[in-house]
Amino acid sequence: MTGKHGEEMAALSMADHELHVRRLGLDTQHEAVVLMRDDCPVCRSEGFTAHARIRLTSARHSIIATLYQVSGTFLGHNEAGLSEAAWRRLGVADGETISVSHPRPIGSLSKVRGKVYGERLDTSALTEIVTDIVGGRYSDIHLSSFITACSARPLDLDEMIALTGAMTNAGDRLSWDAWPVVDKHSVGGLPGNRTTPIVVAIVAARGLTMPKTSSRAITSPAGTADAMETLAPVNLDIPAMRRVVEHAGGCIVWGGAVHLSPADDTLIRVERALDLDSEGQLVASVLSKKIAAGSTHVVLDLPVGPTAKVRSDEAAAVLSESLTAVAEAFGLKTRILISDGRQPVGRGIGPALEARDVLAVLQTLPDAPADLRDRAVTLAGALLELGGAADEGEGRAEAMATLRDGRAWATFQRICEAQGGMREPPRSFHRRPVPARGSGIVTGIDNRRLAQVAKLAGAPDDKAAGVELHVHLDTRVEAGEPLYTVHAETPGELDYSLAYVATNGDIVEISGD
Amino acid sequence: MTGKHGEEMAALSMADHELHVRRLGLDTQHEAVVLMRDDCPVCRSEGFTAHARIRLTSARHSIIATLYQVSGTFLGHNEAGLSEAAWRRLGVADGETISVSHPRPIGSLSKVRGKVYGERLDTSALTEIVTDIVGGRYSDIHLSSFITACSARPLDLDEMIALTGAMTNAGDRLSWDAWPVVDKHSVGGLPGNRTTPIVVAIVAARGLTMPKTSSRAITSPAGTADAMETLAPVNLDIPAMRRVVEHAGGCIVWGGAVHLSPADDTLIRVERALDLDSEGQLVASVLSKKIAAGSTHVVLDLPVGPTAKVRSDEAAAVLSESLTAVAEAFGLKTRILISDGRQPVGRGIGPALEARDVLAVLQTLPDAPADLRDRAVTLAGALLELGGAADEGEGRAEAMATLRDGRAWATFQRICEAQGGMREPPRSFHRRPVPARGSGIVTGIDNRRLAQVAKLAGAPDDKAAGVELHVHLDTRVEAGEPLYTVHAETPGELDYSLAYVATNGDIVEISGD
Repeated sequence: MTGKHGEEMAALSMADHELHVRRLGLDTQHEAVVLMRDDCPVCRSEGFTAHARIRLTSARHSIIATLYQVSGTFLGHNEAGLSEAAWRRLGVADGETISVSHPRPIGSLSKVRGKVYGERLDTSALTEIVTDIVGGRYSDIHLSSFITACSARPLDLDEMIALTGAMTNAGDRLSWDAWPVVDKHSVGGLPGNRTTPIVVAIVAARGLTMPKTSSRAITSPAGTADAMETLAPVNLDIPAMRRVVEHAGGCIVWGGAVHLSPADDTLIRVERALDLDSEGQLVASVLSKKIAAGSTHVVLDLPVGPTAKVRSDEAAAVLSESLTAVAEAFGLKTRILISDGRQPVGRGIGPALEARDVLAVLQTLPDAPADLRDRAVTLAGALLELGGAADEGEGRAEAMATLRDGRAWATFQRICEAQGGMREPPRSFHRRPVPARGSGIVTGIDNRRLAQVAKLAGAPDDKAAGVELHVHLDTRVEAGEPLYTVHAETPGELDYSLAYVATNGDIVEISGD
Repeated sequence: MTGKHGEEMAALSMADHELHVRRLGLDTQHEAVVLMRDDCPVCRSEGFTAHARIRLTSARHSIIATLYQVSGTFLGHNEAGLSEAAWRRLGVADGETISVSHPRPIGSLSKVRGKVYGERLDTSALTEIVTDIVGGRYSDIHLSSFITACSARPLDLDEMIALTGAMTNAGDRLSWDAWPVVDKHSVGGLPGNRTTPIVVAIVAARGLTMPKTSSRAITSPAGTADAMETLAPVNLDIPAMRRVVEHAGGCIVWGGAVHLSPADDTLIRVERALDLDSEGQLVASVLSKKIAAGSTHVVLDLPVGPTAKVRSDEAAAVLSESLTAVAEAFGLKTRILISDGRQPVGRGIGPALEARDVLAVLQTLPDAPADLRDRAVTLAGALLELGGAADEGEGRAEAMATLRDGRAWATFQRICEAQGGMREPPRSFHRRPVPARGSGIVTGIDNRRLAQVAKLAGAPDDKAAGVELHVHLDTRVEAGEPLYTVHAETPGELDYSLAYVATNGDIVEISGD
């Protein structure tokens, strides 16, 4: 059935089925949910059953929602109870009327099925799929199948380019008067790797334009946006973001507030539940946001380590090739840096703890984490060279100078003020150190399990929660000496996190004397 | 994290988190849903967010449910509102106390991820996966990923055997004093192919034991259980089923009421949403139910046609080989019949309409659909031979004789009475014929679109709804002559179905003079 036919059918069947909306205050996150009485005339005449996907149409918008049915008098016969997501997307007020109908069949699902069976996805197929995803027409079942299919049948280069383009076009596009517009991205998996605020401060101080949009945590204890939010507001819309960039040369805002590549947020939620992250979707996710943000020159950091997202040099080489080729197809200049991803960066893991590391580096405090500073300076140096603000081979030294002489710190403060005012990261109420069980040399740190400790302690939702790491690889420790301290905002979360520590072996490995 | 560690953590963290349950009358079908206030102390201290999967533990059971949060005074601070599925599975009474905790990580998901990336699933992996599915631990996202992975990375023979065994062992097992215990299965996709009640009546009349459990509609307008239910009760438990079989030699009951291969129902719900049906899952679905039902000899019917489930002779050959090999591994004797699947069988499509065709054949009425009779007699004949009740080559004639002389009809009535009493299938209130637009010969009938017409008219939930087909392939029709009649229980559904007819081209193709 074509879309047009579907439209006619929807129009035909919706005429009689009007219901009054009621806001339930029901938080179902992304999913639009509608509650109707099982004996309501609409369910009866349309043959709707529970868990069905149905179309709701208000004066302004038409969405697809998951139907749950209720018995009893909780709702009236002519009422439709809406979840917050449904409420927002329909743009209704209490008591307003909506019509209810069968949704038209989702044509792009046949393309997903084709992919499952090994067909390639072309530009038009991926555009249809992404359009339906952004339109909220895919249920979790459909999203999961698409993501799984793209992992089981890896996307080839053309498919990656098509997906990147479709995801870019599905959201807002920014354009800037400046040129070049620089950006950086670290492919996740390394706790505490919070270089972005430092890099933005350095390159903006050197006159490059860096309108940085960052994500919140996906599977990690903190995203850059989560950490930055403890220092300044990050929920800026596009005009506000422009004002900050015009004033300070750069910004560090939450990408979700500017609707760049909105399909990505939906896909990422399901990828997280599946713990699947295919190369094609990673490439499209990273690059669609950069292209949509109007970037022209991008440095990509790939930390490699046994418990990082990229686990081997071979995997990094494959990914680099794809990233470079897809970026090139969109006229985006990239430089890829492969870095050591064997252990967390800095001391803090968790929004506020990471923000404190960032501040220490920017303020050039004597105890600032040297590894975080080194990484930030390397990335900033590469950006200065790529963006033409430093000669080839001089970038790193220039970046270090910009940090040392306080220009980066001054620029960072200017950015924070422009974003709505600088503030102090919160401190945790409940902490407990985890001591070494024996003496020796630190020979391994499990990024993933350490991130899990921080998440169980409450990060990233609890800003002050997380882990403060006291050792790095090759550090010598004595038995009983604290390896790391768990920070939490509630005693329950502290206990929960420590229970995980107690039952999950040595997250920090020490080779005895 | 191992299961044991998880248990300890769950035990540790659940101590303080008790809530009083409240039954919401919320029908979410299979999915267990719990509603809690967003400011309730449990959400706060455990760091639960909306759409999280959390563990609920009552005095009797422990389940995993999807959390939605509500604001306002709809629920008390210490209340947990439960969907009907959660309520049933916890086995609680209103106001009873449950404890709430993080679920332990689902270990088998790493096996699903392995499959996505091309690893084989061994018996222990598939047993873990099926156990977690039956235990309700997989969300729709996880189920969809498993199903998609098994389609994108087709199961090999060993995997099919392991999945079949795991699905068989996950539910009830029936055993019978009789030998042989015969069964039949048609691999779906052919509207109106309602041979089962006729086959059971014939072979039971000839002394074979045929305790038939049938499914309800999955993607079709009627399953055998749906059609049979218009003639007699089908929701029998195992003791009731035994009494019927002892009394009448056979039965036709709904498989869902006896919990054979319960994973299948869960998987099928998601397969339907995806319209994916992989060979491995099809084989495991069909055979696990037969093995669990205690069958020893099974005839499998594979209708082949361009719009049937099996679309080519090559596909039928591949599927036959897998079915035979897996059945053999479990000591099940099979015979596979490949039949013509180019068009619907009989006249009716929809529960009551199909039941009327069945009655006409059993009563040997002059206008009984000959194609349905022929198919039923062929299958019954194969079963008589396979089960040793007829000599090789004589089965079909014996089956026809048993039908013609009224023994099958007498046995069918005895079965219906034993299942709780025979009844008259309902008749639709709203009908409209769809006329031929030109004169000529019927050259094609689209099974899938015709099934869609019947479903949009309300089948299978509305028992009297569906399609009554007036022509078959090679019939000559005149312009304006009715090709089929749409039956519905409500005017809305009749309109909706006819709108689909009007906008979906010629479902019955006529080649003009």
